[in-house]
Amino acid sequence: MLAFAVEATSERARAGRLTTPHGVVDTPAFMPVGTAAAVKAVTRRDLEEAGAQILLANTYHLMLRPGDELVRDLGGLHGFTGWPGPFLTDSGGYQVFSLAKLRHLSDEGVMFQSHLDGSKHVLTPERAMEIQQNLGADVVMAFDECAPHPAPREAVEQAVARTTRWAARSRAAHGREDQWLFGIVQGGVHLDLRERSAREVLALDFPGYAIGGLSVGEPKPDMQVVLAHLDPILPAEKPRYLMGVGTPEDILEAVARGVDMFDCVLPTRNGRNGQLFTSAGRLSIRNARFRDDARPPDPDCACYTCRHHSRAYLRHLHLAGEMSAATLMTIHNLAFYLDTLRRIGQSIRLGRFAQFRTEMLRQLAAPGDEAPGPHTP
Amino acid sequence: MLAFAVEATSERARAGRLTTPHGVVDTPAFMPVGTAAAVKAVTRRDLEEAGAQILLANTYHLMLRPGDELVRDLGGLHGFTGWPGPFLTDSGGYQVFSLAKLRHLSDEGVMFQSHLDGSKHVLTPERAMEIQQNLGADVVMAFDECAPHPAPREAVEQAVARTTRWAARSRAAHGREDQWLFGIVQGGVHLDLRERSAREVLALDFPGYAIGGLSVGEPKPDMQVVLAHLDPILPAEKPRYLMGVGTPEDILEAVARGVDMFDCVLPTRNGRNGQLFTSAGRLSIRNARFRDDARPPDPDCACYTCRHHSRAYLRHLHLAGEMSAATLMTIHNLAFYLDTLRRIGQSIRLGRFAQFRTEMLRQLAAPGDEAPGPHTP
Repeated sequence: MLAFAVEATSERARAGRLTTPHGVVDTPAFMPVGTAAAVKAVTRRDLEEAGAQILLANTYHLMLRPGDELVRDLGGLHGFTGWPGPFLTDSGGYQVFSLAKLRHLSDEGVMFQSHLDGSKHVLTPERAMEIQQNLGADVVMAFDECAPHPAPREAVEQAVARTTRWAARSRAAHGREDQWLFGIVQGGVHLDLRERSAREVLALDFPGYAIGGLSVGEPKPDMQVVLAHLDPILPAEKPRYLMGVGTPEDILEAVARGVDMFDCVLPTRNGRNGQLFTSAGRLSIRNARFRDDARPPDPDCACYTCRHHSRAYLRHLHLAGEMSAATLMTIHNLAFYLDTLRRIGQSIRLGRFAQFRTEMLRQLAAPGDEAPGPHTP
Repeated sequence: MLAFAVEATSERARAGRLTTPHGVVDTPAFMPVGTAAAVKAVTRRDLEEAGAQILLANTYHLMLRPGDELVRDLGGLHGFTGWPGPFLTDSGGYQVFSLAKLRHLSDEGVMFQSHLDGSKHVLTPERAMEIQQNLGADVVMAFDECAPHPAPREAVEQAVARTTRWAARSRAAHGREDQWLFGIVQGGVHLDLRERSAREVLALDFPGYAIGGLSVGEPKPDMQVVLAHLDPILPAEKPRYLMGVGTPEDILEAVARGVDMFDCVLPTRNGRNGQLFTSAGRLSIRNARFRDDARPPDPDCACYTCRHHSRAYLRHLHLAGEMSAATLMTIHNLAFYLDTLRRIGQSIRLGRFAQFRTEMLRQLAAPGDEAPGPHTP
């Protein structure tokens, strides 16, 4: 029912296929973030049209609202949301540490207060598994501790040790055979701790591995060094998921170091803020230069937004505070991300990833805002 | 290029067809309100799927932002928004009186300050025509004065006289042959003033007539009496448009008195506020009774929202502040309105309007919130 296969490689980059009870995911894959069981500002149809194959939902948010038992009673995330494809849920750990008011952290788990209403909750490896089994995603995550950045080496070391113990307890508590439980590798930017974390979690033999604790404030080169270091350690036949990353450039660099799966709020959050990713660099739709620009956001894009609307109209909607500005720009940004991942996969299958990466990085660096419009002399 | 024909009647209700350069509109017709050249929270595709044939846009809002000349330069409302079907614009008068800070009202026109930034503007019949010709809608409105309710009879009388003078100036200033300019009948709830206004405006021979100044706070029976009084006065062969009205019940009662066209913010505004119109009455999605209600908003509805989502999910999205709650509920409410108008038209063509009206009013009065759900004992 669940399977993964690497079908092609080009340099260290991998193209493959993750099979789940709710459908197949081509890798490398980007997962739009549906924090509250909904990708912000878009509908299921928008996601399908943009080419999304799998969505991420957040355990922390859903345990608080509407509650994991209600989601279970209404058919799990699939029945509750109406999204027919695969879901992945995180463990809740990262959000507890970043959003909630922490009350007490111990080997047992975390006591915290909800950021919504101050109500008190406990999250342990066992409870994280119970919630994720109630939510019913296709891929779920072991409960982990993500040390902040920067943190003293001792704190990172402790988080690695606890993440291993919690991984073992997560594995013991998880029982759904229609879900894959991934282990999480921590260790910050310390290569020896990363290696230790990987070897300890690998020993528990998960069907896939997530890399946590990156893109939390460390310099970008550090992330690339960590990924390159983990690449030969992680088993080649299992999927690797880099949590919460990142820009298109970050994703390209991570694919170049053997990563298969990604999620990030950037395309959706930037869409709501009027920041567009395009094949000629980034655009801020508020820019006065777009006032009368009749071109679509990205002339090379075939998404719903680019087929129907101009930069001038999107700029007007954004300045007028129309919700549809957020919807239309989110659709484009997701289509851009998903299309980029598709093209990366294609280049790997064609054995041309190195050339593609060079060309793509050049395009992404273009000064999108500066591109002359038809009305510019 | 522009034509109107009444094709069937049942009692006083009329079913017909308005032909415009951008497509045909079946009447009786409901026009979703696209104030800022966008129907709030939905996209063009949502409108097409819900069955919208014509949209309304507001002259007042668009002259201020993004400016009617910019809209003209980008291909008018059609080119600017990407909506391929017909548009109707109002004259700007009503919004100037209700939204702007009035500086000076005279026979010449209105000086006012923008509600957006306090900038000063002038709106006269000539300027209202210039703006509407720049916007390029298929149907445009003469500039009128809408007296508030309640107002002394003398004020209503003055507004009627000025509306006639402004109608003549509007007609003289309007030159686009691909637009139909409608005259507006004012007169508040005074039947003799309504009749005077109608006869004066009719004398100017417009291709269609709008009825303004209703649903501004007067008792509902007063509106129905005014409409019944105007029905035999207005020429049977020309379209009649009741501005800014109303609830489904209001629309049924107005169709029963010979009205062909409607616009109202209710389905869109209520959608954003979590108020749903259904075939079994109205629902407030916040109601705790819908927490675990797996049924669609309206089991009798075939709209995108009802085909894909449950009341429980919509309630969750609404409480979580997700924009998609507004989108999905707006889609349903618009589909409900548009479907209701289609069914009204069908009943007229079948000569069964009276029965339909009775049955529909009974359904609309049902206590939607009280309907037992599957989880209710």
